[in-house]
Amino acid sequence: MSAPVRVGVVGLGTVGSGVVRLLVESADHITRHAGRPIVVERAVVKDVAKERSVPVPGGKISSDIRDISQDPAISVAVLLVGGLEPARSMMIELLEHGKDVVTANKALLAEHGPELFELARKLGRSIAFEAAVAGGIPIVAAIGECLAANRIESIRGILNGTSNFILTRMEEDGADYADVLKLAQAKGFAEADPSMDVDGTDATQKLAILAHLAFGVWVPWAEISRTGIDGLDLDLLKYAGELGYRIRLVAVASRSDGRLAMRVAPALVRIGTPLAETRGAYNAVSIVGDAVGRMFFHGLGAGQMPTASAVVADIIDTVVGRAAITFRTTGVLESDTPAAKISDTAVLERHFLRIRVKDQLGVLSKITGTLGEHGISIASVIQHDVSGSSDAGVPLVIMTHACDSSAVQKAVAAIDTSDVVRGKSVCLSVLEE
Amino acid sequence: MSAPVRVGVVGLGTVGSGVVRLLVESADHITRHAGRPIVVERAVVKDVAKERSVPVPGGKISSDIRDISQDPAISVAVLLVGGLEPARSMMIELLEHGKDVVTANKALLAEHGPELFELARKLGRSIAFEAAVAGGIPIVAAIGECLAANRIESIRGILNGTSNFILTRMEEDGADYADVLKLAQAKGFAEADPSMDVDGTDATQKLAILAHLAFGVWVPWAEISRTGIDGLDLDLLKYAGELGYRIRLVAVASRSDGRLAMRVAPALVRIGTPLAETRGAYNAVSIVGDAVGRMFFHGLGAGQMPTASAVVADIIDTVVGRAAITFRTTGVLESDTPAAKISDTAVLERHFLRIRVKDQLGVLSKITGTLGEHGISIASVIQHDVSGSSDAGVPLVIMTHACDSSAVQKAVAAIDTSDVVRGKSVCLSVLEE
Repeated sequence: MSAPVRVGVVGLGTVGSGVVRLLVESADHITRHAGRPIVVERAVVKDVAKERSVPVPGGKISSDIRDISQDPAISVAVLLVGGLEPARSMMIELLEHGKDVVTANKALLAEHGPELFELARKLGRSIAFEAAVAGGIPIVAAIGECLAANRIESIRGILNGTSNFILTRMEEDGADYADVLKLAQAKGFAEADPSMDVDGTDATQKLAILAHLAFGVWVPWAEISRTGIDGLDLDLLKYAGELGYRIRLVAVASRSDGRLAMRVAPALVRIGTPLAETRGAYNAVSIVGDAVGRMFFHGLGAGQMPTASAVVADIIDTVVGRAAITFRTTGVLESDTPAAKISDTAVLERHFLRIRVKDQLGVLSKITGTLGEHGISIASVIQHDVSGSSDAGVPLVIMTHACDSSAVQKAVAAIDTSDVVRGKSVCLSVLEE
Repeated sequence: MSAPVRVGVVGLGTVGSGVVRLLVESADHITRHAGRPIVVERAVVKDVAKERSVPVPGGKISSDIRDISQDPAISVAVLLVGGLEPARSMMIELLEHGKDVVTANKALLAEHGPELFELARKLGRSIAFEAAVAGGIPIVAAIGECLAANRIESIRGILNGTSNFILTRMEEDGADYADVLKLAQAKGFAEADPSMDVDGTDATQKLAILAHLAFGVWVPWAEISRTGIDGLDLDLLKYAGELGYRIRLVAVASRSDGRLAMRVAPALVRIGTPLAETRGAYNAVSIVGDAVGRMFFHGLGAGQMPTASAVVADIIDTVVGRAAITFRTTGVLESDTPAAKISDTAVLERHFLRIRVKDQLGVLSKITGTLGEHGISIASVIQHDVSGSSDAGVPLVIMTHACDSSAVQKAVAAIDTSDVVRGKSVCLSVLEE
């Protein structure tokens, strides 16, 4: 048996505590996989006085990152602090003092990935980040290693558990967005400030990281077209259901004609397909590779122990040397990868429109006429007999045949200027498989 | 750029040709992932005269395994010969001459795994075998590396694409087993002799390998309880459908109270759950780990390019050195792992019974009485009004509440001796999630 590897943990929030717990409680099992014991030597936290649910073995806990970076006994640092600063400075400090780093901070990598990867490479260190995307789902390893023989054609993912929890509860309980959001906060599935989750930022940052691994290009996450679930209402979910679909917040990246199409937006997914059957706080990723065909992964995308599972797998990979090899040989992580030409859709898709109209003669004809002028043909229409809904208008739901997304957007903009339309129309893409 | 790595390919059947094609056609892409070019130096085949769909670069093709084993330029050998011999002797020859081996031969590993792994370890070589289980799904890496921090609690898989193709076609087309089997053979989804697929042997061998990785024990595959799909008829699928289920050939391994419960058998899976939504030649694996919770993987489990994708990923892993690390550090592959105490079920499950009875007064009472005597309570019964079916009997379909599998088997044995019962009854487990 080799000597133990000593690990420093930076941040003892939910995930940090889970990592310490797993390293302690599953020590025998982890030792067998790593070929040597892995022990937590020290934790660095913001507030040393705060009570911890999991004791750090040996009780070494302090608030100065240098207690880890400058401890020669520690070879692997686990950075579980969220946000950009001080996380970025801490990562640099750790790398510069010779530590290999494992992190779950997707915002940091989406924002400063190229700079940090380049620094690590220059210093001969590794950064492992399986836990940064889709929690317990080993999607980083799948793309970077297991599917390495494939040219990836497309990625579709449900990457934000909070949004998916809210959409599933709305759909299953017939509850309003605001009520479900409160429930999610009470249950710990949503933060006190859930805006990064529900506005699509979190999913977009994860998509940027996956696209980097899959396509070898660096896409600044803020350039990716992004719509959250915060504009959805229960009626939209009901109409989608009537047509045989559910609504999911779907992150999409696909390659065609040398362009990369990327977006994060709510979309209709057909009931019975894997994305539609992804419920609650689960995440899912569907990948198409030129050799392997369509692969689908499903698992818990957040939460203490699923994320800790991914972090500890990365610690083991780092200890045994696999992480260093992957980081060194996987060319896609290099910072001189080309910036991608991106657009928000690649192919012709069906679209789902919800337009609120005045309940008067000739409205349907007028709207379908506008769609026709933009070359958009209609697959089906739902207009229920709604009484007493004068002010908000009567909802008119249209499913188009496959068409160009920009043509639909132009048509909807034209429709929304009409005096028979009440409020802004909703336009969602439809994913058939 | 480092010097090229030279690979020898043994066997140019479907998968072997796919591997050569992928290494040639995606050379740039693979070089980027491996950090150096990977070239096919030579192929060894049984029949040199046979025409090949994919030319071996340089045209070096011969029939003597020593042309690869004794070529010092070749460092990695890809063994894509099926069956036990000469595959076993070839693997030994290659290892003894210092080659790292990549293989897709699950029968060989299920039969001779401990011996071959021990030899490789002793010689400081590696054996990589991602392609041996579930084709393109990276399940070997997932269990051995990505979920390394977890104690695996259970594995459930659809591991045989041929059986799944047949069941899906029967269910969707309302076609008989024999007709669909012929279709599967015509389409290339079933071999001319499909017995190893449809009798559950193939799935059982794969389950033995997965259980070895997940639970660290060696289970001789022939000791695992095994039932194929060859005894199923269309009526069973229809009744399952009426109750809200589909029938799938499910491989199960789960841990409880120090025992390992393993079996391969057709089972009812609830419509809407991932295993039920696994159609056609797809494979699926659901794993529960103590930290990560339930993970689900879905992808093409066989076929030329999906399997080649897994083989080439293993070649890359071997070239960059990850395979050697995994093989060295993953203790679960050691041959002195304990033989497992296995049983065929772990927990109480619902059961689905189809009993053919004489259409006469008191039959239902008699059968439910026998079930009651064995402590089995009934959740639902289907008996349709069938006219003119005197000889074969009238089908009586019973869904039990959760109960012990051995009690059900005893009850069914007792029922089958009754003079009101025609033929042998069918008893299938029901998997609710």
